[in-house]
Amino acid sequence: MAPILMNSTGNEHSSYIQQVEYVKNPHLDSMEEDILYHLNLGTKTHDLPQMFGDVKFVCVGGSPNRMRSFAQFIHEQLELPGNIADIRDICEGTDRYSMYKVGPVLSISHGMGVPSISIMLHELIKMLYHARCRDVIIFRIGTSGGVGLAAGTVVITDKAVDSFFRPQFEQVVLGKVIIRSTELDEDVAQELLQYSSELPDIPTVIGNTMCTHDFYEGQGRLDGALCSFSTEEKFEYLRKANEAGVRNIEMESTVFAAMCRVCNLKAAVVCVTLLNRFEGDQISTPHDALLEYQQRPQRLVVHFIKKRLGLIS
Amino acid sequence: MAPILMNSTGNEHSSYIQQVEYVKNPHLDSMEEDILYHLNLGTKTHDLPQMFGDVKFVCVGGSPNRMRSFAQFIHEQLELPGNIADIRDICEGTDRYSMYKVGPVLSISHGMGVPSISIMLHELIKMLYHARCRDVIIFRIGTSGGVGLAAGTVVITDKAVDSFFRPQFEQVVLGKVIIRSTELDEDVAQELLQYSSELPDIPTVIGNTMCTHDFYEGQGRLDGALCSFSTEEKFEYLRKANEAGVRNIEMESTVFAAMCRVCNLKAAVVCVTLLNRFEGDQISTPHDALLEYQQRPQRLVVHFIKKRLGLIS
Repeated sequence: MAPILMNSTGNEHSSYIQQVEYVKNPHLDSMEEDILYHLNLGTKTHDLPQMFGDVKFVCVGGSPNRMRSFAQFIHEQLELPGNIADIRDICEGTDRYSMYKVGPVLSISHGMGVPSISIMLHELIKMLYHARCRDVIIFRIGTSGGVGLAAGTVVITDKAVDSFFRPQFEQVVLGKVIIRSTELDEDVAQELLQYSSELPDIPTVIGNTMCTHDFYEGQGRLDGALCSFSTEEKFEYLRKANEAGVRNIEMESTVFAAMCRVCNLKAAVVCVTLLNRFEGDQISTPHDALLEYQQRPQRLVVHFIKKRLGLIS
Repeated sequence: MAPILMNSTGNEHSSYIQQVEYVKNPHLDSMEEDILYHLNLGTKTHDLPQMFGDVKFVCVGGSPNRMRSFAQFIHEQLELPGNIADIRDICEGTDRYSMYKVGPVLSISHGMGVPSISIMLHELIKMLYHARCRDVIIFRIGTSGGVGLAAGTVVITDKAVDSFFRPQFEQVVLGKVIIRSTELDEDVAQELLQYSSELPDIPTVIGNTMCTHDFYEGQGRLDGALCSFSTEEKFEYLRKANEAGVRNIEMESTVFAAMCRVCNLKAAVVCVTLLNRFEGDQISTPHDALLEYQQRPQRLVVHFIKKRLGLIS
């Protein structure tokens, strides 16, 4: 069983050495084949360097439809040749995730919650490694509940924190709890904040993002199938969160930050708030307004990508 | 703000009283409207009792395509009138979940992992409550990794256990950890096991199911983007799991068992194993074999439903 990249030589070899850092797993090199099961891709069935070698930006979000729209939006904004209707789902053989590639940008869905995004990230990071990608920046563009912010505000995450407001992620490995830091790339966050001032119709703040494992009880909602606390206790928890710098609540940021950090991927989280949790629990915003809100993180990240590509000054 | 069901009277009222037990939330009755956001349903926009009042069996599984196939399979097996092609996704306005109704059976997808299934369960249980359903049995029909079992074996879950082999689920509520029992309905499990003997081509066992929050490190896989343990440590963990009665590993059973138990829904977990984890980590089983394996839990549960409906003796 030969190491996958054993036959790399010369310059090819040195570039390989540089990008090894995206994975942290000594076992991978002894695998004859790597099947990225939930992406429906593999090292023997697909030419990953040819398919993905030029990827520089990866954008991930929960909803498959939203990530397809984002791919179409990127295609239009980068003024790429070809027809938008031809952008096809690279993972179409599976319904676990959807993936679209548009020039140097990948757009991938991750479903809802930490376990769902973590499966995708494991396989995505291995894919970037097998494809010998370098200098990749990854963005989570999502939706969230606002904590003291008007609906429609975009939050760039400073620290991703858990339900106890700690900037850490607990990963169980072989029955033991391992703590990982959830620090994100400070420079990318600041650059995003700076560019947001050039998009005056998108109210944007930087703040902490709380990641929970449950949408109802875990986020202090009064409207789940289960609820054992009072309205006062809910507001007390939200106030404490606000005092800890939490500006929005979602369900993926801690593991996203933790895994990207360990794997040396520069990462940022940009989520729009769909409601202000001090005003309610239900998402009753009209459909059209929700759609426009959901485009805001996309527009900010596209602005960033265009700046980085030198398409706008 | 009138309670949703305030105008119930007479027999209607007493049946309402009996089915209140599916939710455990005193706040719900004071809500003027309940928007089941991730299902794209609501109490004001949909006549939930008319749409779902006759539901007696709910089957849930991770993949939307698989749950559509299951709905078609049920339609055929119950010999219902109408065309299979006309079975439409009730949640088609959203891509978070898919839902199909075939006679008294609902088939719903839940994505991957505890947070994803928990969002669906909160909204499903409220839907059953609003629809005034009674005597519902819910099944999770899924896929899993086997622990010492040949690929293709169906495991009926005795106890759903966490990564530490404890039959419990930890739910964080307002920053405090609450422990819930993950006991499933013993009678339904035994009945399933009994019926499995009538399907001799489906090897079936009863045993504990371990639910993890991660597919790679959390299940002792050596092939993730991250891995910090040795092959020996992996096998030691799997051996310990096996000694604790664990026969398969998946990612939803503990919260499924815990929520259904609190909400008085009779629940069972029936998963097929796609590989034997003592033999490997990658799912390299050929596509056709995987498809046939995935139908096994469906066939067992359909057999159960047909028995309960008196369609077979």
